[in-house]
Amino acid sequence: MSVYQATCTAPVNIAVIKYWGKRDTKLVLPTNDSLSVTLDQDHLRTVTTARADASFGTDEAGTRQDKLWLNGAEESIKPGGRLDACLCEMRKLRAELEAKDRSLPPLSKWGLRLCSENNFPTAAGLASSASGFAALAVSVAELYGLRAVMTSSQLSIIARRGSGSACRSVLGGFVAWQMGTADDGSDSFAIPIAEREHWPDLHVLICVVNDAKKGTSSTVGMQNTVETSPLLQHRIKHVVPERMQQMNEAIQKRDFAAFTQLTTADSNNFHACCLDTTPPIFYMNDTSRAIVHVVEELNRARAEAGEDPIAAYTFDAGPNAVLYVREKDMSCVRQVVQHYFPGATMDDRLQGAANDASEAPASSLSSSSLSLPLPSSLPATFRPDVVPVHPAGSVRRLIHTRVGDGPRVLEHGQGPESLLSADGMPVHTK
Amino acid sequence: MSVYQATCTAPVNIAVIKYWGKRDTKLVLPTNDSLSVTLDQDHLRTVTTARADASFGTDEAGTRQDKLWLNGAEESIKPGGRLDACLCEMRKLRAELEAKDRSLPPLSKWGLRLCSENNFPTAAGLASSASGFAALAVSVAELYGLRAVMTSSQLSIIARRGSGSACRSVLGGFVAWQMGTADDGSDSFAIPIAEREHWPDLHVLICVVNDAKKGTSSTVGMQNTVETSPLLQHRIKHVVPERMQQMNEAIQKRDFAAFTQLTTADSNNFHACCLDTTPPIFYMNDTSRAIVHVVEELNRARAEAGEDPIAAYTFDAGPNAVLYVREKDMSCVRQVVQHYFPGATMDDRLQGAANDASEAPASSLSSSSLSLPLPSSLPATFRPDVVPVHPAGSVRRLIHTRVGDGPRVLEHGQGPESLLSADGMPVHTK
Repeated sequence: MSVYQATCTAPVNIAVIKYWGKRDTKLVLPTNDSLSVTLDQDHLRTVTTARADASFGTDEAGTRQDKLWLNGAEESIKPGGRLDACLCEMRKLRAELEAKDRSLPPLSKWGLRLCSENNFPTAAGLASSASGFAALAVSVAELYGLRAVMTSSQLSIIARRGSGSACRSVLGGFVAWQMGTADDGSDSFAIPIAEREHWPDLHVLICVVNDAKKGTSSTVGMQNTVETSPLLQHRIKHVVPERMQQMNEAIQKRDFAAFTQLTTADSNNFHACCLDTTPPIFYMNDTSRAIVHVVEELNRARAEAGEDPIAAYTFDAGPNAVLYVREKDMSCVRQVVQHYFPGATMDDRLQGAANDASEAPASSLSSSSLSLPLPSSLPATFRPDVVPVHPAGSVRRLIHTRVGDGPRVLEHGQGPESLLSADGMPVHTK
Repeated sequence: MSVYQATCTAPVNIAVIKYWGKRDTKLVLPTNDSLSVTLDQDHLRTVTTARADASFGTDEAGTRQDKLWLNGAEESIKPGGRLDACLCEMRKLRAELEAKDRSLPPLSKWGLRLCSENNFPTAAGLASSASGFAALAVSVAELYGLRAVMTSSQLSIIARRGSGSACRSVLGGFVAWQMGTADDGSDSFAIPIAEREHWPDLHVLICVVNDAKKGTSSTVGMQNTVETSPLLQHRIKHVVPERMQQMNEAIQKRDFAAFTQLTTADSNNFHACCLDTTPPIFYMNDTSRAIVHVVEELNRARAEAGEDPIAAYTFDAGPNAVLYVREKDMSCVRQVVQHYFPGATMDDRLQGAANDASEAPASSLSSSSLSLPLPSSLPATFRPDVVPVHPAGSVRRLIHTRVGDGPRVLEHGQGPESLLSADGMPVHTK
């Protein structure tokens, strides 16, 4: 008997022009374009195994028994929910293939088992819905043989139904999500802006910030902003359209100064709209703001010395900072961060060989609760008292990574990469 | 020999529709209207003694020797600076009076000595420029006999030259600052919206927040916002004009629900524009945000019970919260604040008789580093875990006050209220 199964991976992406607000919550259609950088899957990724089997139950009698495990724990699939919408969409496409070619096994009628794992610990505080829904869409599409008949942009429409930002994780490099104008969402998809190889020295330092408070969920938060913030309307109509063009140009030219200016301004503009919401939404905390002050002071001192900025910061719906830094400047920026925010675990995925942070070799993980000295190469007018040295652990973890490629197919059928055992249960359980 | 001297007081005001941005930095002309509540001078005020004397030096030979003491320390008066502009303006008006009536002493030709003291400690973290420049304008105007020939609105134009928000401190109750359209600023002044007696049960709780970091000065900050924030332009053109009208209406009707909605939304909108500035400006810190969360949760739970909101919060260019609360609800709000933010000195100027916090009678000052229990009268669905109980001292001081009247004349000539001794030196020195 054949095992109908595919195991694929998808990357994390970090927006530099932010998505915030839906014009259609059911179809997940955004109120503005957005643009992101895909991070390297060797460092951060979701792996998903998708299997279809006649024994899993069929959907003809309403008894379809799709199952999902996330990081070893079973999650229910809400009928009519977002995941269900993604699966319905792909079943429909598979059924069309089956109708055209009767030799195909009737996978569209069988139940599905999906098993998904992130290689970054939940403790990293990184949103996993983008890589999660992208990996899911890619692995089911692969299982169903849809990838031969679909473009990545078409696949991104399906991932979008699961989570808006997931649509940008179906491509590598620099990716735009065109908001589109069609009511059915058929023109709201991801398009490539540039390949990862276009700007290879663009590196990334993720600063995972310690935070007691659980923030507002982005799904709820963004709709409150749409409904109550007068400033968001201005952002949608006037701020983002211009910045999308400028950002595209900055990336094409590898213009780090323009990239930095646009990235930081758009992060701040997005958080401003959150603050302008009723009730206000705060994602950045005092540590986040201290990181902003340090980066702004570094960039200011560099500008005074006639030099380019050294780092761009951006914050998603949480307190963690993502810094874009050119490779040549990374050790300086790291040391500055480790001066002001001692005690962070340093997780250098470019020096170590770890695919799994929880199993990273000792060489790639290091931590010191002592504040490092400031690097000697700082620009002359940098003011060391810009912020105080923070208590150890204010930044919990630093992850050094870079721009990465799009989803990968690891294997077809049952093999060493599979997250489902031969009997269709998760290999790793909690 | 006569002593030409006047001693006057002016109140603090707290804007509910914020002033942020100048269209003319020299004349201090704002980019939008604003609206404020004047606080009770029995609790918070600046006192200024202004004296003119032939022996202080004259300005004809460029040897004018004006002198200023602020809270016991001498400050230099920068020629062409803001204070100098206020004094020039008033000297010109005095000279016109003297030209019409030759029997008047030539005060306009004499040097001035100005001695100014706040009755609230600097430690209170309240901006003193509004009450300071208002008291200064009022006392010099009183000394020069200008108040008989000027309206309060005309006087507010002079105070405005010193500090924009000072123009609103020349009136009591509820005050609007009309931005005006004239290039010379002649129509940019304060007008009364309602007297203090109009809404006597509107009380105020100032929460003085502990903060390590020194914030961006508002003078520098607001011009950076004008130059770099795309959202500020939307605020100026579309958000404020509508809110000014709605706020006026809410005050006329004593509609606390509308007053709360507009006050909180405008505070958040203002801080959003600060965040949208390049580089971003942050005035609120984690404690400020925790106060917002508590107040929003109280109001949400009250709304769910079909009741009016209990408190409106607003933040100026710093981390301190100012809460507007009706008298009947004040003890509940105080107790909630003292639950989540223990260890604040409670400075209840309505129960005590203190005019000077540093000399407040024991009965009006109290402090406990223990968290008070939550009041039993909270609405049923209030979630006590909205924020954790904060470390003692996160909020340093609580000041309970109410709406107050406009500037007062304490005395003419040398008397017990004078801050200058008979020989023209400060009575209190540092």
